[in-house]
Amino acid sequence: MPYVTVKMIEGRSEEQKRALVEKVTAAVSETTGAPTENITVFIEEMSKNHYAVGGVRASDK
Amino acid sequence: MPYVTVKMIEGRSEEQKRALVEKVTAAVSETTGAPTENITVFIEEMSKNHYAVGGVRASDK
Amino acid sequence: MPYVTVKMIEGRSEEQKRALVEKVTAAVSETTGAPTENITVFIEEMSKNHYAVGGVRASDK
Amino acid sequence: MPYVTVKMIEGRSEEQKRALVEKVTAAVSETTGAPTENITVFIEEMSKNHYAVGGVRASDK
Amino acid sequence: MPYVTVKMIEGRSEEQKRALVEKVTAAVSETTGAPTENITVFIEEMSKNHYAVGGVRASDK
Amino acid sequence: MPYVTVKMIEGRSEEQKRALVEKVTAAVSETTGAPTENITVFIEEMSKNHYAVGGVRASDK
Repeated sequence: MPYVTVKMIEGRSEEQKRALVEKVTAAVSETTGAPTENITVFIEEMSKNHYAVGGVRASDK
Repeated sequence: MPYVTVKMIEGRSEEQKRALVEKVTAAVSETTGAPTENITVFIEEMSKNHYAVGGVRASDK
Repeated sequence: MPYVTVKMIEGRSEEQKRALVEKVTAAVSETTGAPTENITVFIEEMSKNHYAVGGVRASDK
Repeated sequence: MPYVTVKMIEGRSEEQKRALVEKVTAAVSETTGAPTENITVFIEEMSKNHYAVGGVRASDK
Repeated sequence: MPYVTVKMIEGRSEEQKRALVEKVTAAVSETTGAPTENITVFIEEMSKNHYAVGGVRASDK
Repeated sequence: MPYVTVKMIEGRSEEQKRALVEKVTAAVSETTGAPTENITVFIEEMSKNHYAVGGVRASDK
């Protein structure tokens, strides 16, 4: 605890994802006081045809 | 805001998904008063072997 | 199936929520072909201090 | 109702997933009193590079 | 891992919830092979006015 | 985009939550390259009787 889910469009590199979970974990630990080893991060990727703002999918723009 | 997630079995066409996000966004805007451009829709697809009602997966029926 | 989740700031009236689930269900049925009785809608409300865009919570603006 | 989501690392066999949804459905029915046919189970798989505990992804260990 | 979320209408007793997480954890452990201590269960309750099947909320039936 | 959800036991102060969303947003922006204003953070709190590790709820320990 805490459990963090980051949902984003697919396409980030492994380097970016590795840094993402590391930095987000540090930010959560620093601000909540939870020990780093208790923090879980999930990455969820979505494709552009499954994401829409304003009624238009990212794949249709 | 609002954020809408539609979870369904995979297999809808791109035409259906395009219409889905458009019509759902309109329905949410009309009933909540939120401007269309503030509404986000996520589609999440699941495969038949990852979905069960009554303890039996759709892929096992 | 499908399962729809609508996440929004708290404060909509019961009338708005009733219309919301009715209209969203109709939109999903029309565009996916799923029978109305198979469609589930969940409303999730969040308070302003639990929602942030750009790093600032809605309650701090 | 209820709706159960099981999130886990990818790689379980179809036999394991079939047993999982069957046994979980039975456990939920027994303890909540909900009829088996009203219980829904979703399986969500994640890859090792999308899951981190303690700031380190399972794929980086 | 795994992480299990059980979403249901509010109103179950503490006894039921205690039994629910115990039995569900056992079912997941038995079928996936994950050690009990690695399994997490979240209960999410919803009120009847936030849950609709067929476009009608449970609170409006 | 991205959308970040932080799920944790209730009880953090407003100061902690304010810092949490600010620091997490900065961490996501820095590592994914997404502009700060495009990043959304949701906080979800759970009570101790709705959270279990190893089949035992936090409220029962």
